[in-house]
Amino acid sequence: MTPQQSYKRLTEILAEIQDLKRAGNVLAWDQFTHMPPQGSAMRGRQLATLGKIAHDMFTSKEVEDLLGAVQAFEKSLDHTSDDACLLANVRRDYEKATKLPSHFVSTLMTHQSQCYDVWVQARAENSFTKVAPYLAKTLELSQQYAQYFKYNHIADPLIATSDEGFTTQTLRGLFGDLKKQLVPLLQEVVAKQKADDSLLKQSFPLAAQEQFSKDLVAAVGYDFTRGRLDTTHHPFMISFAHGDVRITTRYQEHNLSESIFSALHEMGHAFYEMGIAKELDGTLLFDGASSGVHESQSRLWENIVGRSMNFWTFFYPKLVAAFPTQLSGVSLSSFHSAINKVAPSLIRTDACELSYNLHVMIRFELEIQMLEGYLDIKDLPEAWNAAYEKDLGMRPPSDAMGCMQDVHWYGGLIGGQFQGYTLGNIMAAQFYEAALKDLPHLPDDFKQGQFKNLKQWLGSHLHRHGRKFLGLDVLKKATGHTLDIHPYLNYLTGKFLYILE
Amino acid sequence: MTPQQSYKRLTEILAEIQDLKRAGNVLAWDQFTHMPPQGSAMRGRQLATLGKIAHDMFTSKEVEDLLGAVQAFEKSLDHTSDDACLLANVRRDYEKATKLPSHFVSTLMTHQSQCYDVWVQARAENSFTKVAPYLAKTLELSQQYAQYFKYNHIADPLIATSDEGFTTQTLRGLFGDLKKQLVPLLQEVVAKQKADDSLLKQSFPLAAQEQFSKDLVAAVGYDFTRGRLDTTHHPFMISFAHGDVRITTRYQEHNLSESIFSALHEMGHAFYEMGIAKELDGTLLFDGASSGVHESQSRLWENIVGRSMNFWTFFYPKLVAAFPTQLSGVSLSSFHSAINKVAPSLIRTDACELSYNLHVMIRFELEIQMLEGYLDIKDLPEAWNAAYEKDLGMRPPSDAMGCMQDVHWYGGLIGGQFQGYTLGNIMAAQFYEAALKDLPHLPDDFKQGQFKNLKQWLGSHLHRHGRKFLGLDVLKKATGHTLDIHPYLNYLTGKFLYILE
Repeated sequence: MTPQQSYKRLTEILAEIQDLKRAGNVLAWDQFTHMPPQGSAMRGRQLATLGKIAHDMFTSKEVEDLLGAVQAFEKSLDHTSDDACLLANVRRDYEKATKLPSHFVSTLMTHQSQCYDVWVQARAENSFTKVAPYLAKTLELSQQYAQYFKYNHIADPLIATSDEGFTTQTLRGLFGDLKKQLVPLLQEVVAKQKADDSLLKQSFPLAAQEQFSKDLVAAVGYDFTRGRLDTTHHPFMISFAHGDVRITTRYQEHNLSESIFSALHEMGHAFYEMGIAKELDGTLLFDGASSGVHESQSRLWENIVGRSMNFWTFFYPKLVAAFPTQLSGVSLSSFHSAINKVAPSLIRTDACELSYNLHVMIRFELEIQMLEGYLDIKDLPEAWNAAYEKDLGMRPPSDAMGCMQDVHWYGGLIGGQFQGYTLGNIMAAQFYEAALKDLPHLPDDFKQGQFKNLKQWLGSHLHRHGRKFLGLDVLKKATGHTLDIHPYLNYLTGKFLYILE
Repeated sequence: MTPQQSYKRLTEILAEIQDLKRAGNVLAWDQFTHMPPQGSAMRGRQLATLGKIAHDMFTSKEVEDLLGAVQAFEKSLDHTSDDACLLANVRRDYEKATKLPSHFVSTLMTHQSQCYDVWVQARAENSFTKVAPYLAKTLELSQQYAQYFKYNHIADPLIATSDEGFTTQTLRGLFGDLKKQLVPLLQEVVAKQKADDSLLKQSFPLAAQEQFSKDLVAAVGYDFTRGRLDTTHHPFMISFAHGDVRITTRYQEHNLSESIFSALHEMGHAFYEMGIAKELDGTLLFDGASSGVHESQSRLWENIVGRSMNFWTFFYPKLVAAFPTQLSGVSLSSFHSAINKVAPSLIRTDACELSYNLHVMIRFELEIQMLEGYLDIKDLPEAWNAAYEKDLGMRPPSDAMGCMQDVHWYGGLIGGQFQGYTLGNIMAAQFYEAALKDLPHLPDDFKQGQFKNLKQWLGSHLHRHGRKFLGLDVLKKATGHTLDIHPYLNYLTGKFLYILE
């Protein structure tokens, strides 16, 4: 085979691996949306098999040989071309995957699916002890995962699974700097604000909320011929193909903001995947650059755009039309301050913008302590509650509202699960600042219900690249800057001190 | 490895292959129920990849070697044990699969998915010419499929894919005998009956129909913790696991019987899969014995039970309660004769019991003519219409109601697709006759809304075996008889001459 033929053969194998992974996504989506209760045991096995086969194919002798055979071809490529980036990513993935034995991968996948099922029940019954042995096994597997790699800190290989380029050390420094500035701002705003969000806690019929969420994301630009909006306990975005990127949200009768902002959040994730160049569909570049960059897109649309006065200048009349009894006496400015009310709270996904990162940092530190072996699973609930008391001034009344609230540890690994949310907040402000520099009329666009210009800017500056470049490289390409917390702090200060006035 | 160890390794590989197939089923279910329009292209590729990998794993050198290594172990087994039956089926499947090259399998799967998508559009637009080139390719691939096997008649290998043990010749003989008796009975009943089914053509709101269908199948014994009832254009049953066997139906405002009898039909299929011994879950024995036996279960519940006076003695008051405006003036006996109205019609799935098999026989003969090369795809619409005119006395007003009405050829192969429906009708009567001999109180059970005894009888006499035995062997085991058209003819004659009285 010529190097070109080897490359062609390699891309064929990679395409099949990608198909297996996307098939696994369909099974996972079904598991969370439609699967009958008794389907879960075998579903776990099916997912584990797909993962194991994909892993075996990727770590096969044939792929190793082909990676050797394509070197001459690879050197001839422009290093920003799709092919060069594909190969760079393949080599990085291959390096990691070959360190993990096949039996570890299938043990892990089977365990994750079981642990998830137990968590669903345990959370419903508020019984941490029920899920504790499974979580202990997850911790053990997470530690074992790290052992397959060289590292400075045991959390580093886990962070690298989602935010390559960051380490425990760099993140601790970054989060420390951010926290130092956030806490006083949070305290100042909490002390002075007069926002009242009781108007969002009226009774809002679920069917009308669902209709509004669908209309809203469609109006902002979510293409329903390429996606769906379903209902799940934990909202998520999942992608099967360029033509099939689905989102979910959840509806609570006495919480109007939950469904709206979860939908906008997942829509932001979906815009990213839907914006990846169609030529990359079905390849392993059809993915996001990192957890942080992905999260920046959801937080940008949820918060910077979705909680802005300009956005609701356009959409609030439509919201009032959908809920006339509840909202016809409520002014736009009352609504706007309600959805931006600052207050420490117990649930991360409901947190206000100023306290959100504190939730992330608590989880990040707990992950490290667990991985280091300083925190036993049986002591996790108390450690969680103590951290909330210290940083947010409130203690969860139950583990369901405490350390069992997020799916991440229960359906995945411990370590590397949360830092992306804060990285995303920081990057979102950087991306938006850069977009605004190119398109100063954006705020006016939003007032007119026009989102195409921002969507196109994000599409051409970052979405289209998919996973071609690392997260920090995408940031640099799109904004000209490296990671910087100041645009984010400026955004928060500007917005919340303005609202206080 | 000892022969036992070889057998264990073989079952591990087979379990993974089964997982791939069931994963493919989840993707197919999603494709028909929830997939957004633009998801279809990549879905086709994903399904083809799963099929190809399963095929490659099954036809690998390792499986060949293991099949050799287990021979000593195999000889020591009781030939009706699960292990012996598994190996017998594996050898039969292996024999077939190794005849098909991997590239043929993936070409076929990709084509089937494309052809299905085009058919959906073509049928909606009533444009046979749109789908004709795809169907011509299906025919070519079907003929090519047969060429990989030895055969007496080109349709034989295709019939063997779903009803092993039957040939073109035996089926032609069987169908000829049946037709000879059915046609005069049909003519007699049509001439004499006074049934009026206009009461079923009133306006029945879709939501209420959906609720009634769900309540009905639940009351008969469909377990919603192990399944779902969704809506699709073409109703079907699909199985992912012992704990996840799903059904679909369709709702038409002016056709009450459509949704009810489609739901009962698919419920019958689901009872079969749900009744397979749990020990067989995740193995290739977790399947039906043949298309004919599978169909016998759906037709038994749809017709022999579901269109009986005893069944509706119990359920009719509930139906009237669901649709009081439409049905409160209608007697049970009027309803019963309406749902059993005999009349030739154009759509197979709506056909009355006496004409149903004529629809099957038309398709069976057309398949043979196409495979033999005597009928070109371009001439199919006219051949179809001429056959309907001759055998049923009516000509389809459109190809959508003619040769484009069934999904089978457009999503599968040409050949072996339809004989199972008539075999199923024949066997259903044989199974029911045997059950009634053991449980003479069954008609009274139905009157009381009790279906457990019949379900258990079917479960222990045939469902639990799954795919352990061939269709005709299952029939023999459960009834003590070989295939025989007389119980079916007796059932039809008894029922329809009684209704005439």
